This record gives sequence, structure tokens and C-alpha cells, in this order.
Amino acid sequence: MLQHPPARIGMREHEVDTPALLIDLDAFEANLDSMAAFAAGAGVKLRAHAKTHKSPVVAHAQIARGAVGQCVQKVAEAEILAWGGVPDILVSNEVVGADKLARLAALARICRIAVCADDAGQVAAIGQAAAEAGVELRVLVEIDVGAGRCGVAPGPDAVALAQLIAATPHLRFGGLQAYHGSAQHLRTIGERARAIGAAIDATRRTVEQLRQVGLTCDIVGGAGTGSFELEAASGVYNELQAGSYCFMDADYARNLDEDGQPVSRFQHALFVLGTVMSAAQPGVAVLDVGHKAVAIDSGMPVIWQRPELTYTGASDEHGTLRVAAGHAAPAVGSKLRLVPGHCDPTVDRFDWYVGIRRGRVECLWPVAARGGFS
Amino acid sequence: MLQHPPARIGMREHEVDTPALLIDLDAFEANLDSMAAFAAGAGVKLRAHAKTHKSPVVAHAQIARGAVGQCVQKVAEAEILAWGGVPDILVSNEVVGADKLARLAALARICRIAVCADDAGQVAAIGQAAAEAGVELRVLVEIDVGAGRCGVAPGPDAVALAQLIAATPHLRFGGLQAYHGSAQHLRTIGERARAIGAAIDATRRTVEQLRQVGLTCDIVGGAGTGSFELEAASGVYNELQAGSYCFMDADYARNLDEDGQPVSRFQHALFVLGTVMSAAQPGVAVLDVGHKAVAIDSGMPVIWQRPELTYTGASDEHGTLRVAAGHAAPAVGSKLRLVPGHCDPTVDRFDWYVGIRRGRVECLWPVAARGGFS
Repeated sequence: MLQHPPARIGMREHEVDTPALLIDLDAFEANLDSMAAFAAGAGVKLRAHAKTHKSPVVAHAQIARGAVGQCVQKVAEAEILAWGGVPDILVSNEVVGADKLARLAALARICRIAVCADDAGQVAAIGQAAAEAGVELRVLVEIDVGAGRCGVAPGPDAVALAQLIAATPHLRFGGLQAYHGSAQHLRTIGERARAIGAAIDATRRTVEQLRQVGLTCDIVGGAGTGSFELEAASGVYNELQAGSYCFMDADYARNLDEDGQPVSRFQHALFVLGTVMSAAQPGVAVLDVGHKAVAIDSGMPVIWQRPELTYTGASDEHGTLRVAAGHAAPAVGSKLRLVPGHCDPTVDRFDWYVGIRRGRVECLWPVAARGGFS
Repeated sequence: MLQHPPARIGMREHEVDTPALLIDLDAFEANLDSMAAFAAGAGVKLRAHAKTHKSPVVAHAQIARGAVGQCVQKVAEAEILAWGGVPDILVSNEVVGADKLARLAALARICRIAVCADDAGQVAAIGQAAAEAGVELRVLVEIDVGAGRCGVAPGPDAVALAQLIAATPHLRFGGLQAYHGSAQHLRTIGERARAIGAAIDATRRTVEQLRQVGLTCDIVGGAGTGSFELEAASGVYNELQAGSYCFMDADYARNLDEDGQPVSRFQHALFVLGTVMSAAQPGVAVLDVGHKAVAIDSGMPVIWQRPELTYTGASDEHGTLRVAAGHAAPAVGSKLRLVPGHCDPTVDRFDWYVGIRRGRVECLWPVAARGGFS
């Protein structure tokens, strides 16, 4: 990890070097408390998704508020959490390849670990890795509940795969992975309710068919920040896998509630701090935050509390701001907070979180599980 | 750097774990040789841009073939190259902030270093940093030759800023930075020639006006992989700053020559290796390469030599492939090479290059200067 930490503890925010990844700690903790209260009230477990935060520190903060463990999306994330003392981890995804499965199985010696499958050949490969490591691995069947990506069809295909898992030495059938990713970003509550309603029906039917062959689902997992109230109320899902709620982002902030207003349960707690590096062109300011420092796959970032500034274009190391007519461009050297369009890959661009409270740097946390390798 | 290297020296390519960033070493070296021969033939210097490769190893390979040094886009990249023994570095960009300028000035003790400015206040700040470090810094004036981003207007504004630099203690006027980034990706040779022609005219006029006030441009720098033949033939530019040529990408491969054919001077030398992790849906295969492992800001990646497979969508950790009718989906566990849409930010997603020659892993190089911090 060769990147300089961009701050020192005790600094004021405007002294933090840029681009930097900021957590507003008050907002972050309020988000964790809000989701913990929701899950407790709804009688479902929270297994928060670490693909958002990539940090054992954040994982432990969620677990301290009642989360049963963490989801991750790949072995590299599972390793960082397990090495950081997280006791219960679900890889909510398929893991393919003998090296990766050996790494996964090795983790079973230091934590509870589970993984998903959607292929009979892969069940055999997971079983072989578990046998070679001398451990038992819990395996969930991933079912496709509408995303059209990974997952077997709900119903008989899922039951057959679950029976294969249950019959494989060193494996234990762990339940169903039933996440509908694309439904998270449907804008109206009606669209989300229709999509998740279909997912709930398919999941309920599959759980019932599994029960009929004597298989119990310890975990029926799914749900994201855009839909978790729906899965929580289903009576079928027992674990929520929301991740982004801890930070929020500009894309999730575009989701609407019953009244057509932005859903407001969570606050923006994650920001990229940038510096104006050029204002030589009229009506334009250039930030040192391009798409190498803020992900643009779900839209451009929003300049925090500066409606006169619009982030119009990102190149690798530059972000171009359009200044609304009648407003002065921000001065060269001034610093601005950006709300990322998409929090998960934005976090991935950085080695360090800078935690801010009441205008001062309170902590520096490594983004320990960042990176493209899996 | 906590990421596992995805390979060991001597492995065969299909044994490399994924996602991995591959260099085809034969193609890479052919690209370096081709550009070196071009620059020598054209009588211009090559100062290859390290924002593409982020690696002292690659920098030294370019310098060994005659490059006069390297461009970088930010101080963090300059540090990694300087610490890795690169002797001559131009930050082809503005650097703003006292901490960053102090880091820049410190490098002047171990290498030749230059930086750009487009603001009088920043010239003073650079001068102060140089004075505090007790070094001399070379400063180029960046002029806007069409991109509308950073840079003062060509002509009198540039001359005034150059005179300010020349009059500032501890600074030396180093020339002009005149890069037209957006012209690199205009598809037809005619469009590129018109855009670069205007940039050449503006640059020539500014060089002449500087000469009239007694200021000489050691460096007149610009040009990228899409346009460098034009700047090289201008008689005004004396340093080419191309970066992507060493690797190429799918976006540059869409540029056309005089005959409307893809420009073919350089070969694809950079790939992301992925594994098929799910094929549970008909007509679909899912790779473990999402936009956290391959940049999609300039379009989706292309599956290498598999025209029946189209990469249709990227999420964080998944890439969805559409399989053309009449073709079988690739098997779960099989590995595919992807040509990234955009090489620079794709490289940034990884900690390791895996160098491949004749099907075997020949080297592992760290992507030493990766990351969002500057």
C-alpha cells in the first residue's frame, strides 16, 4: 500500500489532501443505527454487504449493532474480513477455480463461511476443496429471481441442486441466495414492489418445495438498500443483505417513496473531497477528481450543497464543473465535497477512508479489501 | 498491498487466477519498438505518458528505447517513478496545494522534474514551494488548444504567464504544454487532422510570440496515441506524450486511417483474463470481470478472438456475455481474454501485471503508481 494517507488525525477537513474519501461519521453511525432498528423491528437478520465498504472496521461496527455477519462478493473480500476477525461470512456469489476454492476452504478454520452455487459441477468442486482442507462448507443455492445473471431457476432446478449439495460429503446445504440486484434501482416504489413481489413468490415457492423434500433453509437471503423493506415484510426472507445504506450515494438518492419523494431513511455519509485545480476557462472549474477517483457507472457525482455547480464530465484525473450563469467559479485551491453516483466502486478507488466529525479528522481506516482481484 | 499476485512465474496462462491483468510481452515490445522507430524517424522526442502504465518497469523499457523521460498526471505518479529511478519527469498537469507542491519540490533532489501552470497565483505557490525546498523547478505554461478544460488561452495570456514564471525566483520557464485530449478519439483521420491542425496553429503562434519576448520553449509537448503523427510533422511540437500506444485498447482500435480502416500501427498487448463463473441462464455466460476489473468509461470490453461472445453489461463483480445464436456458451471455469475499452483506468484496477510470453508467465510487475490519490 504505497499511497500516502491524505490526512492526519486532528486535521480540519479543509486541510485534507485530495482526492480523498471522506466518511461523515455522524451520518454513517445514524445510518447504521437506523438499519439496525429497522431489522430488529421487522424481526429479520441483517447480514450487511461488505462489497460496499470493504473494511473490517465497518463490518465490526455493523455487527456491534446486531448484524449477524457479513456478505462479501468474492474470496479476496472474505479473506480480509476473516483476517480482521469477522466471525460469520457469506460469499453471496459463485466461486470458481481450484485456487480460489482452496483459499475459501482455508477460511473455514477461522470463521463461519458459506458460499453460493448454481452449477452441479461446481458443487463437486466445492466439495473437493472442502475435503482436501478437512472442513465442512455451507453452500447456498443461488436462484435467479429476475436479474437474469447468475442463479438456477427457482423451483425444481433449485431443489435438485440443493439435494446434490446435501448429498455431497463435506458440504451442508445452507439455504437460498435470492437477490434481485436490478430491482434496487427502479425509481418508483410501485416498480420495486412489483419486481420484488415476483422474487418473493419465486423464493417462497422454492422454500416450500425444499421443505417437501426435507431440506430446511437456514438462510433465505437477499434484499438491497433499494428494496429491503419489501423482503423484510415477506415472511420468507430471513436475512437482509443491504450494503449501500451505510453510505448512500447519488443513485440510491434518486429512488422515490409512496409520495414520489426521495426515500429519506438514510443520509449521505460518503464523499469524495476534491480541489479546484484550474479555473482558466470562463464558466468552467476543473476538479482533481476524475473517474479514477469517483465511479461514474451510475451517473456523475453531485456537488454537495452547491446547486450552482454541475459535474458535467470526467476524464481519468479531471472532473469538469459547469458553473451556472450569474455565479462565480470556485477559486483555484478551494475544496468541494462530491456525492458519488455509486458508492461501492468509488470506495474501491482509494486506499484510505478519512473519518470526519465536527469538521476534524477523527480516524483513518484502510480500504483493506479493495482491488480488482477476486 | 494486500492483493495476492494472481500467478507464479512459469505458470501457463490458463493457470493464472482471475481477474488478472495480462501483458502480451511480444506485442508490448513490438509497440515500444514501433513508436521508438517512429519518433527517431520523425526527429521528435518521445516522453511517453506513465498515466497509462503506472510502472517504473515500463518507463525504463521506454527509456531504454530512446524516450527522453516520462509524463505523469499527478505527484503520486511522479513519486513512484522518481523512487524507481526514472531520471526526467514532466507532470503534464496542474498541481495545486501546499502539501502536493512540497512533495513535488522534494523530488527535484533526485530527478529532473517539471510541472504545468495555468494560473498566476499557482505560479507564486510553485515558486514558494521551490524556495522552501531550495530547488529550481521547471514550469511549463499549459495552453488550451481545444479541449476546453485546463490551460490559458494561446497567445498573449500564455506569454504573460510565461513571463511571470521566468521572473519568479527558483522557477525556470520550461515551455508549453499543448495537449488536445478530446481529439485523440475522433474516429476519422480527417476529423483528427482538423482538430490537431488548429492546435498546431495556436501552439506555433504562441511559440513565436514567446520568442519575440526572448523566451525559448525547451519543451513543446502534447500528442497522444490518436494523433501523434500529426504533431510530429508539425515542426512545432518537439516532444510526443503518447501513452496508450504501449498497450492499445478497444477504443483506440476504433480510430480509422485514410482508407477508413482501423489504424494498425500498434497491437493489443493488454488484456484482462476472466473466468466464466456461471452459465445457468440460456444464451448467457457470466464472467468474474465487472467494472471493478475493467473500465467501461470508453465502452465495453471486447472478448478477444471470440466474435460469438458479446460483453453486454458490467456490474461491480460480474460481466454478462451474450452468446450468439447457434453457439454454445463457454463452460463454467473456462478462461477468456478481454480487450479493455480504455487501458489507463483498467490498469488502475489492479495491483499486478502478469507478463505472458509464448503462453507462460514470464514476469510479475507491480502497478506501483495506481490509485485515486494524487
